[in-house]
Amino acid sequence: MSNDSSSTNASWGGRFTEATDEFVAQFTASVDFDRRMYKHDIQGSVAHATMLGKVGVLTQNEVDQIIKGLAEVQADIEAGNFEWSVALEDVHMNIEAALTAKIGIVGKKLHTGRSRNDQVATDIRLYLRDEIDFILTEISRLQKGLADQALKYNDVVMPGFTHLQTAQPVSFGHHLLAWLEMLKRDYSRFVDCRARMNQLPLGAAALAGTTYPIDRDLTASLLGFDKPTANSLDSVSDRDFAIEFSAASAIMMMHMSRMSEELVLWASAQFDFIDLPDRFCTGSSIMPQKKNPDVPELVRGKSGRVFGHLMSLLTLMKSQPLAYNKDNQEDKEPIFDTIDTVQGCLRAFADMVPHITPKQDVMRTAALKGYSTATDLADYLVKKGIAFRDAHEIVGESVAYGLKTKKDLSEMSLEELQQFSDQITDDVFEVLTLDGSIAARDHFGGTAPNQVKKAAQTALDNLK
Amino acid sequence: MSNDSSSTNASWGGRFTEATDEFVAQFTASVDFDRRMYKHDIQGSVAHATMLGKVGVLTQNEVDQIIKGLAEVQADIEAGNFEWSVALEDVHMNIEAALTAKIGIVGKKLHTGRSRNDQVATDIRLYLRDEIDFILTEISRLQKGLADQALKYNDVVMPGFTHLQTAQPVSFGHHLLAWLEMLKRDYSRFVDCRARMNQLPLGAAALAGTTYPIDRDLTASLLGFDKPTANSLDSVSDRDFAIEFSAASAIMMMHMSRMSEELVLWASAQFDFIDLPDRFCTGSSIMPQKKNPDVPELVRGKSGRVFGHLMSLLTLMKSQPLAYNKDNQEDKEPIFDTIDTVQGCLRAFADMVPHITPKQDVMRTAALKGYSTATDLADYLVKKGIAFRDAHEIVGESVAYGLKTKKDLSEMSLEELQQFSDQITDDVFEVLTLDGSIAARDHFGGTAPNQVKKAAQTALDNLK
Amino acid sequence: MSNDSSSTNASWGGRFTEATDEFVAQFTASVDFDRRMYKHDIQGSVAHATMLGKVGVLTQNEVDQIIKGLAEVQADIEAGNFEWSVALEDVHMNIEAALTAKIGIVGKKLHTGRSRNDQVATDIRLYLRDEIDFILTEISRLQKGLADQALKYNDVVMPGFTHLQTAQPVSFGHHLLAWLEMLKRDYSRFVDCRARMNQLPLGAAALAGTTYPIDRDLTASLLGFDKPTANSLDSVSDRDFAIEFSAASAIMMMHMSRMSEELVLWASAQFDFIDLPDRFCTGSSIMPQKKNPDVPELVRGKSGRVFGHLMSLLTLMKSQPLAYNKDNQEDKEPIFDTIDTVQGCLRAFADMVPHITPKQDVMRTAALKGYSTATDLADYLVKKGIAFRDAHEIVGESVAYGLKTKKDLSEMSLEELQQFSDQITDDVFEVLTLDGSIAARDHFGGTAPNQVKKAAQTALDNLK
Amino acid sequence: MSNDSSSTNASWGGRFTEATDEFVAQFTASVDFDRRMYKHDIQGSVAHATMLGKVGVLTQNEVDQIIKGLAEVQADIEAGNFEWSVALEDVHMNIEAALTAKIGIVGKKLHTGRSRNDQVATDIRLYLRDEIDFILTEISRLQKGLADQALKYNDVVMPGFTHLQTAQPVSFGHHLLAWLEMLKRDYSRFVDCRARMNQLPLGAAALAGTTYPIDRDLTASLLGFDKPTANSLDSVSDRDFAIEFSAASAIMMMHMSRMSEELVLWASAQFDFIDLPDRFCTGSSIMPQKKNPDVPELVRGKSGRVFGHLMSLLTLMKSQPLAYNKDNQEDKEPIFDTIDTVQGCLRAFADMVPHITPKQDVMRTAALKGYSTATDLADYLVKKGIAFRDAHEIVGESVAYGLKTKKDLSEMSLEELQQFSDQITDDVFEVLTLDGSIAARDHFGGTAPNQVKKAAQTALDNLK
Repeated sequence: MSNDSSSTNASWGGRFTEATDEFVAQFTASVDFDRRMYKHDIQGSVAHATMLGKVGVLTQNEVDQIIKGLAEVQADIEAGNFEWSVALEDVHMNIEAALTAKIGIVGKKLHTGRSRNDQVATDIRLYLRDEIDFILTEISRLQKGLADQALKYNDVVMPGFTHLQTAQPVSFGHHLLAWLEMLKRDYSRFVDCRARMNQLPLGAAALAGTTYPIDRDLTASLLGFDKPTANSLDSVSDRDFAIEFSAASAIMMMHMSRMSEELVLWASAQFDFIDLPDRFCTGSSIMPQKKNPDVPELVRGKSGRVFGHLMSLLTLMKSQPLAYNKDNQEDKEPIFDTIDTVQGCLRAFADMVPHITPKQDVMRTAALKGYSTATDLADYLVKKGIAFRDAHEIVGESVAYGLKTKKDLSEMSLEELQQFSDQITDDVFEVLTLDGSIAARDHFGGTAPNQVKKAAQTALDNLK
Repeated sequence: MSNDSSSTNASWGGRFTEATDEFVAQFTASVDFDRRMYKHDIQGSVAHATMLGKVGVLTQNEVDQIIKGLAEVQADIEAGNFEWSVALEDVHMNIEAALTAKIGIVGKKLHTGRSRNDQVATDIRLYLRDEIDFILTEISRLQKGLADQALKYNDVVMPGFTHLQTAQPVSFGHHLLAWLEMLKRDYSRFVDCRARMNQLPLGAAALAGTTYPIDRDLTASLLGFDKPTANSLDSVSDRDFAIEFSAASAIMMMHMSRMSEELVLWASAQFDFIDLPDRFCTGSSIMPQKKNPDVPELVRGKSGRVFGHLMSLLTLMKSQPLAYNKDNQEDKEPIFDTIDTVQGCLRAFADMVPHITPKQDVMRTAALKGYSTATDLADYLVKKGIAFRDAHEIVGESVAYGLKTKKDLSEMSLEELQQFSDQITDDVFEVLTLDGSIAARDHFGGTAPNQVKKAAQTALDNLK
Repeated sequence: MSNDSSSTNASWGGRFTEATDEFVAQFTASVDFDRRMYKHDIQGSVAHATMLGKVGVLTQNEVDQIIKGLAEVQADIEAGNFEWSVALEDVHMNIEAALTAKIGIVGKKLHTGRSRNDQVATDIRLYLRDEIDFILTEISRLQKGLADQALKYNDVVMPGFTHLQTAQPVSFGHHLLAWLEMLKRDYSRFVDCRARMNQLPLGAAALAGTTYPIDRDLTASLLGFDKPTANSLDSVSDRDFAIEFSAASAIMMMHMSRMSEELVLWASAQFDFIDLPDRFCTGSSIMPQKKNPDVPELVRGKSGRVFGHLMSLLTLMKSQPLAYNKDNQEDKEPIFDTIDTVQGCLRAFADMVPHITPKQDVMRTAALKGYSTATDLADYLVKKGIAFRDAHEIVGESVAYGLKTKKDLSEMSLEELQQFSDQITDDVFEVLTLDGSIAARDHFGGTAPNQVKKAAQTALDNLK
Repeated sequence: MSNDSSSTNASWGGRFTEATDEFVAQFTASVDFDRRMYKHDIQGSVAHATMLGKVGVLTQNEVDQIIKGLAEVQADIEAGNFEWSVALEDVHMNIEAALTAKIGIVGKKLHTGRSRNDQVATDIRLYLRDEIDFILTEISRLQKGLADQALKYNDVVMPGFTHLQTAQPVSFGHHLLAWLEMLKRDYSRFVDCRARMNQLPLGAAALAGTTYPIDRDLTASLLGFDKPTANSLDSVSDRDFAIEFSAASAIMMMHMSRMSEELVLWASAQFDFIDLPDRFCTGSSIMPQKKNPDVPELVRGKSGRVFGHLMSLLTLMKSQPLAYNKDNQEDKEPIFDTIDTVQGCLRAFADMVPHITPKQDVMRTAALKGYSTATDLADYLVKKGIAFRDAHEIVGESVAYGLKTKKDLSEMSLEELQQFSDQITDDVFEVLTLDGSIAARDHFGGTAPNQVKKAAQTALDNLK
């Protein structure tokens, strides 16, 4: 983008005595990346022209010409018949020049009462708003995949880990719903970001507003904005929406890096908990036995670029005096790349997740190891009236015995268990089974299969 | 904090064969920083005990003892009669040990149906919620200062800058309201963050929920949470609230760095736009003439640490498998320092802003230079029926003439101006004055004094 | 990029049962960005083939065919006659496929004893090494411009600032040499980075080395590397060179943001210290009077993206287990963009700096204000035998008197000055002049013009 | 620290009309953290005084008094008999005030020819230089532990991973030496950083140098600096050393996060590759079976804070105009915390690494799975004269057969293998064993045990 400067010396009049250095022209141009917003630039211009017509700054005939001309420009761009010019610096000037070439001097009137400073602030919001909407759709699609899987595998038992050490058995469905919860917060952060940015900067002009009798409420309404922004200086200098969007994206990518990490672990020979479909993996030309989980690895790695863009934007805005500075042109590439990355990762995951298959036997075997039901035994003893501290000690001794005899708690006989406490009776084995253990955590948020089923169903209902 | 591990080998029973290395004990302890949350740890425990009583896991007598004991512990801490022990690792174990020392084995029962994993997740939310509330108060106080000043100086003219070049005259009050707008978005981001985190993790226990018949809705309600969290694995591993809080803080500090930059510029001999009260500045022992704007400089610099903490937390959580890992202990210091920094900067600014005095003459003189009303002349010509492109050219020539003759547009005679267009008549001088220029931008968001007055008044009304 | 996987299912043999998902193929391909390294990929392959010939793994005839074929591929690419294929995933497979298409099955033999893991590690080092060399050249060019200007303006006086408050007069040349010093450290950091990365990874193969009798010293020497890397696992997983390069670039961009900030300030109407050539500025289509310092503004803003890339790369590598993971493919785009940014900014500055003109009168006038020689008066009094503490007090009173009477110290009469101390005699006025003040700081590193001249000359000699 | 301002209004004389706000005084003071540098502040002062004596600015008697007084101050501090005062703002003023209290007005003369701006720049370099030296020692200690272990376990076979999939067998010692290589680069980065910062800023005074006839070469030599800095403005504003130190630390912490990740994986039940000594782990009060690898988890997490501090410092310096600004005071806490973190992590690892025990049987069993010698079979076939492409296909078919029949390559009979190629003869089994596979990668940097032994021995020799 561009600031308040125009692209050719011609348009700056007599103030300048020499032409822009050629490298400088290229170094400072933005059309190579901001042309991506052509549709939103035109959308904004159509609304602006319509408003100028309504308030009498343009005649209806002028408005009609402009709108028709812009439609033709858009058609040209979409048909690939548009030559973007670096000399014209940015998407705005390129489109305005094309419009003027089509409809003559009336095209120039479109810029009445606005500046590129408020124009670009409007374009980027329109653009980002659409992209957020698509991101929301993709999050929902991924969530649906998770909820479907959770419903299907609500009673599949796997080891739950803390410190990557076996802790307690959990439902595989419950684990997937943990991911769904993360995404629920991500979704709501994008919704908040969208709402906060959904205000119209147009009318701020270069920085102070305009002397034309504009109707900002009308333009806002034409463009689907909730209202006009309240301060012109702030309107052209504010880049919060970009940073907040980046921050929401960074948090989501952090979540996706965690899911990825788990998928990579689970796909390893050591865990061997899941099968990933071949079409989401690649092999090796050297090592014929390899099946690499490329998609989660790459998504994990891509968290880096999104974190980086957030830092980039914060740095960009640090210490900038009001109002518009050329620095701000640097806001676009980080946003664009963040959008592409986030949408790509969501798509890859939303496509892949429904096809992840848990290896239920391996998971169950792993959960059986590592005394994952030790907590259940302690709780059992407490419920029998033993003090928690004593219960803990009893379990500790049982585990020590198990380590020595290479037996899990559930593999010990009643007699063996009774060595440690005579309060232990036959009903202990229900408690020591994996299924007994997860079924017992039967409260809102707990891992009991019926809770998982309910949670998955609720999620699916909300996603409808 | 600490994870699910206890602090002494004694409590781990027979699983371990050697004592923790002394340096390791110190390296992994968190009590030096997490004791800051003692009040919220006790608050959470009181609610947990109350709930355990209601559902029958504890007797009412036990609950009473626990609550009384905790009150005594709190009183001890606040009286400075509490010895924090690194051997007890964290705030939770320190308080539990003190409670047990006071009331005996009943103290241990408090930990029934919970784990340090869900306990710390609860504490930090309670703690952060209070701090956010204070931040909101301070933002409002700063905003009030800005709105008061804006109301007072609604018609004081200063040069508005783009690219730090004089662009168009603006109202000083309008400029201050731009800052207020930034803070408005910051405020709402903290509100959103608070709402999103206001859910009760307690009940997630170590990671999978608990086998006790807990009533999470009750605990949530006792602690002022909107509801319990929906997934136990997510509850103990989620650190979104910390990152989102950091991101909101980073954006606000970015804003404060911008305000600071402007204050530093304005306090320089070259701008000389404002007087900062002596009590917010320091002098020099070497250079007796110096009066340094230390507060804004320091606030500008402090943006760095807040950005850094955000990066720190994102890195921390990147690629962590579920559920709780020891890494998570590292979430606290960045949050605490962010809180201290943000609150300190807000306080310094909220104290200082009401006492900033604009040097109105200097501002006006500066605004008169630099052809700041050139845009007004162009708009004037367009309204007289001249095409925008021609109008721009006429103004360009006038400015070139002014540069040569060292006259601002408003200093030229009618005859001089008419050299460039015979459409220029006597009414042009109203347009070329600073007051005329700002008064003409009379729409919502524009810099016209009456708009500024209205905006300031609205802000004050909303802040009541 | 690449990892150890090949691009088509065909090459993975029977291990896979379904084709790669089309979106996944595109999502995971790297050819769109890594083809930038085509020349270094070929360079590495030529050396590898030569070595394989020398050790007898390939016949000389095979080596000749391969080298000839690669030369043709390179010619095709450079002539624009090369179709890059996303299906072939990366630059390596694209070139290998083209080679094989030209010379048949012998082309496949090139990959003997290497893997894409060590190949890409080699390519990126070769590529980055060349780019660093160009960066070094550009830093020197910018430094030469600064030294020339410093020599020319060694005795031009400007106010020196601390806290952006006038502190003491300094030489404009001295100020420019401060920039030169920053760049000197930047230069040496790039040199260190280059030296540290200048080792050959080839031979590490996929991760463990190869069973072929390779001669890594020979390959290293053919490619200008100092020696082969010492550990195969490290060789394919190490991305330090990318991060260290990013860090050196970030520090340099930090420096350039500081220079930019000063140029923007100096070009403002308030400072008005310099003239920037028109060809490095842009104007405004709205405000005909504007001349915006776009280049320094944009360079200042571009610091953000380089900082961001550094964070991106650190995040990328955090917590990655050995050896190669697909994540690593994400290392390239941040490096490439950093290179482009750094080189662009250096070029713009190296072109612009020689044409910056100081407005000597404005600078001198500014330096005269603000009691910039107060320190000199204090030093004068101390040299007359007055204790520092007393001297400071005397100067303080003189300044207070000056503020009241609106006179700088040098504007006071001898009688006026003697009010504050009878030790003040006629020789004080030499001390109070700007030229006297700067001339008196006559030691290595001081601002005295003869020191500045000497420093500039030394710099120019070293740059030859 | 504090800039060029003094700490009490008294010392600023008549310029100020009101006392510093109490909160502001506290907000801007640095003594709470910069007093950590007391020893280096005194060291710098002793050298400065000595130099002032040599050039005749102080008498020898004055120098002696100052040095004696400073020694007493240092003794007081180290005995805990020193009251740090926030009112005195920073470590420099606290020590100067104490000195003056001891020796009277002569104490004030110490500040002749210097300013707090160059003083703090000197202190921090002296301080950081010592800390870097300790870091270097600790890196060497950790490297020695790795080399010892590598020597001991040079022929222990484990699976080598790419994409966390079994790729080829490697030596456990070789894997540890990959870590040693990372640390070797870290070491050299700290050495470079130390060399680049080892220049004396003292003499730059506030920003422009001093009028006293100082001998900077002498002071530099007294303090062990290589030479004085070359430009006074740069000397007081440069914070490169802090950023470069942070960057070197961040890269090292990235490495340690990778080592940590592997240790956490290896300690999991799923990998089960190593035993970590109990004293570096903690247990769980809830789950008696847990043994959590707290140290590597925490070190992994601590990478975040070090990355964050780097970002913090880059942000801090972005866009700061010369010379000293109050912002710079914010450089210290990030450096201090980075030092503490890096030293703590190194210590924990250097203590732990010698006591890591590989579970050799588990590793070997894991390496036997996953067709890790498939590449060896392909190489074998190529050496028998089969084209690489055909060899790859043959191996692919063998692996597919193995997957179907659940046999590793080494478990197939000669007849079974010959199904796929009649070139396979009895000597194939040597190639297919783990030991054969690793022994065959017998070149510099390869995983063959004799290469590992040699590399470990070389490392140990270099560490002596």
